[in-house]
Amino acid sequence: MIRRLGTNDSYTASSRPLERRLRRISWLERREEARDFIAAFCSETGRSQTAFQKRWSDVRRQMRRSGSYEHTPEELAFGARIAWRNHGRCIGRLFWESLEVFDCRHVTAPEEMADQVFRHMTTALGDGRIRSLITIFAPVTASRLPSYIESPQITQYAGYADRAGKVLGDRQNVEATRIAKSLGWQAPVERSRFDMLPLILRDEDDRRHMFDVPASAYREVPILHPQAPEIAELGLRWYAVPCVSGMILTIGGIDYPCAPFNGFYMCTEIASRNFADRKRYDLLPEIGRALGLNTAPHAPSLWKDTALTELNRAVQHSYRAAGVTMLDHHAASEQFMEFHGREQSSGRRVAADWRWIVPPQASAAQDVFHLRMKNFHPVPNFYNARSEDGRWLMPFYGNHHQSRLEHGLDRILRRWKLWKRMPW
Amino acid sequence: MIRRLGTNDSYTASSRPLERRLRRISWLERREEARDFIAAFCSETGRSQTAFQKRWSDVRRQMRRSGSYEHTPEELAFGARIAWRNHGRCIGRLFWESLEVFDCRHVTAPEEMADQVFRHMTTALGDGRIRSLITIFAPVTASRLPSYIESPQITQYAGYADRAGKVLGDRQNVEATRIAKSLGWQAPVERSRFDMLPLILRDEDDRRHMFDVPASAYREVPILHPQAPEIAELGLRWYAVPCVSGMILTIGGIDYPCAPFNGFYMCTEIASRNFADRKRYDLLPEIGRALGLNTAPHAPSLWKDTALTELNRAVQHSYRAAGVTMLDHHAASEQFMEFHGREQSSGRRVAADWRWIVPPQASAAQDVFHLRMKNFHPVPNFYNARSEDGRWLMPFYGNHHQSRLEHGLDRILRRWKLWKRMPW
Repeated sequence: MIRRLGTNDSYTASSRPLERRLRRISWLERREEARDFIAAFCSETGRSQTAFQKRWSDVRRQMRRSGSYEHTPEELAFGARIAWRNHGRCIGRLFWESLEVFDCRHVTAPEEMADQVFRHMTTALGDGRIRSLITIFAPVTASRLPSYIESPQITQYAGYADRAGKVLGDRQNVEATRIAKSLGWQAPVERSRFDMLPLILRDEDDRRHMFDVPASAYREVPILHPQAPEIAELGLRWYAVPCVSGMILTIGGIDYPCAPFNGFYMCTEIASRNFADRKRYDLLPEIGRALGLNTAPHAPSLWKDTALTELNRAVQHSYRAAGVTMLDHHAASEQFMEFHGREQSSGRRVAADWRWIVPPQASAAQDVFHLRMKNFHPVPNFYNARSEDGRWLMPFYGNHHQSRLEHGLDRILRRWKLWKRMPW
Repeated sequence: MIRRLGTNDSYTASSRPLERRLRRISWLERREEARDFIAAFCSETGRSQTAFQKRWSDVRRQMRRSGSYEHTPEELAFGARIAWRNHGRCIGRLFWESLEVFDCRHVTAPEEMADQVFRHMTTALGDGRIRSLITIFAPVTASRLPSYIESPQITQYAGYADRAGKVLGDRQNVEATRIAKSLGWQAPVERSRFDMLPLILRDEDDRRHMFDVPASAYREVPILHPQAPEIAELGLRWYAVPCVSGMILTIGGIDYPCAPFNGFYMCTEIASRNFADRKRYDLLPEIGRALGLNTAPHAPSLWKDTALTELNRAVQHSYRAAGVTMLDHHAASEQFMEFHGREQSSGRRVAADWRWIVPPQASAAQDVFHLRMKNFHPVPNFYNARSEDGRWLMPFYGNHHQSRLEHGLDRILRRWKLWKRMPW
């Protein structure tokens, strides 16, 4: 089911939302990122210096002609994996090498894109043992912005605000729900806290296209507690596969604004944040009452701590019972420590943002809490917008400090050579 | 009881541990900090511009003569309170104005200093309703390093390591225990997990002096759980008043290396860190067993989360039952939000380090988790050593960004004036 809605022809290109989110880098910076990326690709995949020289002269030729260049399928897959490995906010990077990459750069029609995305979701879910996948659509080129997905995740629950400001569902999605409705989306007759929102794409002309997420593309897990039946009575549920579609993948100076990827959940993401945050479902008082805790505002009983632990236990138990892959925060922390160790023994520094890596539950009991971290934002990487995380991305691959001097000298030399070669 | 032990006459001054911890700032930077501090003092205490000019010319005169200057008692008290208000790692700054300041700059004999410190401890404890106090001893001057307290806290428990590496007591203090023993400290015949270490001072000649902490100077709270009697059987206890003695207070360019201060405890400090950290008491497995939880390494039961919550509950309950002041992390977080709001309505930015402010328990359920913070290290402040937090301290009072341009211009002008006035 496809609906083509609204045109924005009266808008200028620069007022388009995607345009405002993209990094702004100069031609020289793009060239530099491209060179660093090709060099990293050749060295990490064991290619020779001659192969690098050949490919790099090819890339330079393409960039001189069109301002951009095309990644080979191998480069694309490598770049996506490295972007995951480099992303400082992800705790689950141990298995970065296992990321499966679907190259869909040729798919540009919104209907076909939606089909691909739903196929991605089905494949990722499988029988419940979730696989980590990424589907990469067309990149930004000098002459056009490609189609992209407007929704930050493929599956999201609606949030209905009434006039008194009370919200049924996910508070985070009140605005998205309003937009979907204005585009003609029909909320179910019997509204619930867990109504799936449609997927919204924007095509090359910035028109919105809306697609209902088919039932085959997702699966939901009802939340039960192993001991407390009162939790099951609340009728909570959550979807199995978190698929992030709102981040821009940047590889070697080329931006892929439509590259939905999925991993699997860590239990605190659902229990301690989606369900508990006051700006999301705000369920702690409900959980506390269901568990029979004293939830008076200044109760000395630390009831929120108990409610959080039990909610985490319920979420973890439910996913396990449903046979859907999920990690608890203790296991995730251990995996991160192993990832950190492996990266260091490979001679690479790990970019990591302490505030995102340390789980919000039993924080100090985990080794990651005591680890010194720094997010130095290497590329390739994923980012949301240039005004937030995009502006920190830097064209050095890996170690900022080691490459600063080398980089400076290199740049002077290359600018000089470039100057001589430029078609003035 | 006093013992005077060991001399370090063969060491040069620069190899003294205190010397290595002090900030290194130039004469001009010190002058600038002094000026900013005097200006802040005059403006915040409602003094006139004339009063500022008078005091500032007096300070300049002192600095020209000796390289340093002396704070008035009012300036000292004001500076200590502002240092607390500015300290980015403290969540409990709401009551910064209520800090009581004991001016002991004239007390220099180690015995008298120890007496003062123990009197501080007794006063702070009172009947259990803890008062926030600071006792300030002599500052560093151009010609000498003053006596200071070597122990990071006044009360600390010993840690005894046996040959197999097993530790009885606080793992953090194994080295301090070894030093105390080498100085002649006699551990109790029956060693326990909670043996009070002696206080160690270093005098102006860097000689160590050791003092037993008298029973009147501290009080201990036995840890019981409101429901689980098994916790009481573990025989845990902790002291009532945390008194930090290892930080250097810096006010207007003058460093006070001996300025022990105390507040009161937040329950996670004892329960989630001192008792739970693997490099401290590592009690979680013991607590888990006492509560009858399944503590197998890969038990899916999130037992650590439960153990942490119950330990927090026990600590909070015990302090409350003993009538000793303590905050839980939820109340502390609320107080910090109020402090933040008050500071902002006073037109001041709040320096805060997210990693230190957000409690390690039920983190995301607290408003501070969702607050954007930046520690911009204003002075006056407290710091540990120049190699860690000391190097970030900056001579702008309050808002770095607002004062940058003004500061630059100001500095050029002042250097020019200074140049003309210097006694070349």
